[in-house]
Amino acid sequence: MRIVLDAMGSDQHPDPEVKAAVQAAKLFGDEILLVGNQELLKPRLEALSGDTSKVQIVHASEVLEMEDKPAENARRKSDTSMAVGMDLVKSGEADAFVTAGNTGGAMANALFRLGRIRGVKRPALTALFPVKTGRAVVLDIGANADCRPEFLLQFAIMGSIYAEKVLGRPHPRVGLLSNGEEAGKGNALVKETYPLLEASGLNFIGNLESKEFFAGDVDVAVTDGFTGNILLKSSEAVAKLITDMLRQELMSSTRTKAGALLAKPAFANIRALMDPAEYGALPLLGINGQVFVGHGRSDERALVNAIRVTRQAVQADLIVALREAIQSRLQEVKEIV
Amino acid sequence: MRIVLDAMGSDQHPDPEVKAAVQAAKLFGDEILLVGNQELLKPRLEALSGDTSKVQIVHASEVLEMEDKPAENARRKSDTSMAVGMDLVKSGEADAFVTAGNTGGAMANALFRLGRIRGVKRPALTALFPVKTGRAVVLDIGANADCRPEFLLQFAIMGSIYAEKVLGRPHPRVGLLSNGEEAGKGNALVKETYPLLEASGLNFIGNLESKEFFAGDVDVAVTDGFTGNILLKSSEAVAKLITDMLRQELMSSTRTKAGALLAKPAFANIRALMDPAEYGALPLLGINGQVFVGHGRSDERALVNAIRVTRQAVQADLIVALREAIQSRLQEVKEIV
Repeated sequence: MRIVLDAMGSDQHPDPEVKAAVQAAKLFGDEILLVGNQELLKPRLEALSGDTSKVQIVHASEVLEMEDKPAENARRKSDTSMAVGMDLVKSGEADAFVTAGNTGGAMANALFRLGRIRGVKRPALTALFPVKTGRAVVLDIGANADCRPEFLLQFAIMGSIYAEKVLGRPHPRVGLLSNGEEAGKGNALVKETYPLLEASGLNFIGNLESKEFFAGDVDVAVTDGFTGNILLKSSEAVAKLITDMLRQELMSSTRTKAGALLAKPAFANIRALMDPAEYGALPLLGINGQVFVGHGRSDERALVNAIRVTRQAVQADLIVALREAIQSRLQEVKEIV
Repeated sequence: MRIVLDAMGSDQHPDPEVKAAVQAAKLFGDEILLVGNQELLKPRLEALSGDTSKVQIVHASEVLEMEDKPAENARRKSDTSMAVGMDLVKSGEADAFVTAGNTGGAMANALFRLGRIRGVKRPALTALFPVKTGRAVVLDIGANADCRPEFLLQFAIMGSIYAEKVLGRPHPRVGLLSNGEEAGKGNALVKETYPLLEASGLNFIGNLESKEFFAGDVDVAVTDGFTGNILLKSSEAVAKLITDMLRQELMSSTRTKAGALLAKPAFANIRALMDPAEYGALPLLGINGQVFVGHGRSDERALVNAIRVTRQAVQADLIVALREAIQSRLQEVKEIV
């Protein structure tokens, strides 16, 4: 297997990427194509001890900057590490592309260079949320602020395949995020999407409230990109608010400080649960090629995990499964609705 | 001042209501009209020691049940405690109505019996969220799943007046909840609402992400009822998830158990912050009469707090201020947009 790692992606690039490439090649036996400025990469790679023979540097002269407008950048700059890396997937020279760079930039480049899977109206950004029972998929979390019902149907199909093939959940339970559980609740989009999901042949459990979502009632929650983005960011913000307040409260007296010291292992476990490094990277679902995006704060360990989930997706033939599911499910819905 | 308290509202009704009525009459010197089944209320009131002369029972034979469809119930049942209580406000016999009953039922009854403030298109449900710096208003949190830009403009006007007059915030900062801070970000609704808020003369700070909201950047966050409801319920669910997990982790070893015991005061302070009893009750903004709704789990203390904020709104002439603001601000926007 050949996996492209964007060497210019993470906030601390390229050091974590160079180390992760060597580490992943050793762990998984894959070839890693490290794409970025070779003048930066070569000395760093050579300085590492251990076997670097499976890591190959591919030069890319430009970097996607945070200030760039993603769509414009994707069209104009063809020599960024993202562009060069995705072209390697497009040409079949590599099986997948992994980056810890800007998600919007990755989506824009992916749309421009790899295009959409046939039949897919809008690719989606995916997130894995920590829930009571483990983790659950949410999509779309921001690529499409305004959605039509058929987009949400496609998100459900793609999220379900991802949960099954990559996360190993048989018959993934799919819920439609809403402001009430009963059928008939929701905004206009939810009400129009409901019958499509009912007819989809997916394991659709109906409307889903946040409470049930975080209790672990589904494997996949489907929503428009505006709501999904607010769900994601408010969850992160509330988690931060509570932990910040708790820290402040715990530091307020000698007694609580002593308690905090003793309770430290418990806090560390909670932090680990919230840590994006644990799941590594997430797919751009609907793109006609394997593109996985990790968190900007990814370190070496997170990037190795990112490569791990990406190769699982390659092994599971995720793109082929998505292609087939989109075709067959959409046909099914068309026949019923 | 005369305040109506729905005696049949809270989950534990009517005991907390009877006690809260006596307590509030004593604390504030107001007359409290306790509306509900007199056969239940009379013996309970008589059994209380202390001065009950300022508490008057008003009989209502029916109760709004959780199973009732709010709109249907409001139209059909005219002798529920909600209907009778609101009629007392309508006729001018009382200044405000407080309930810890079903919010949907209160809104339906309020629309049917008191109607809307002139010019208001859609009344909104309000919530007070705990944020880093204290509390912030969010509306709508569920009354209107599908909104037009002018509804959101009106929510902003009403939320701003409420923050100023009742919460005591001068020049309340108003933000438009969105999936990105920059002007031009958002779904179609947000993009169309933005220029209206800019022209409103309110202290509009622009688009607002969840992170900034929970950091305390605004006094009022405006959104449609679908998104607001998901924001509310997901915040509650995440807070519960984290505290549940922390409890579980803390109970996992003798060391962490000892730590938790010492740190107890810190946890109690966090719980208090999340406790809806602290703010008592929230207004149905846009209804042509003072209607405040408290949490179903309200106990005596929460109900006394509910009466406290309600009487603050009466003292501040909230309804008159809302009427004037709606007229003048809408005129202002019309002249500019």
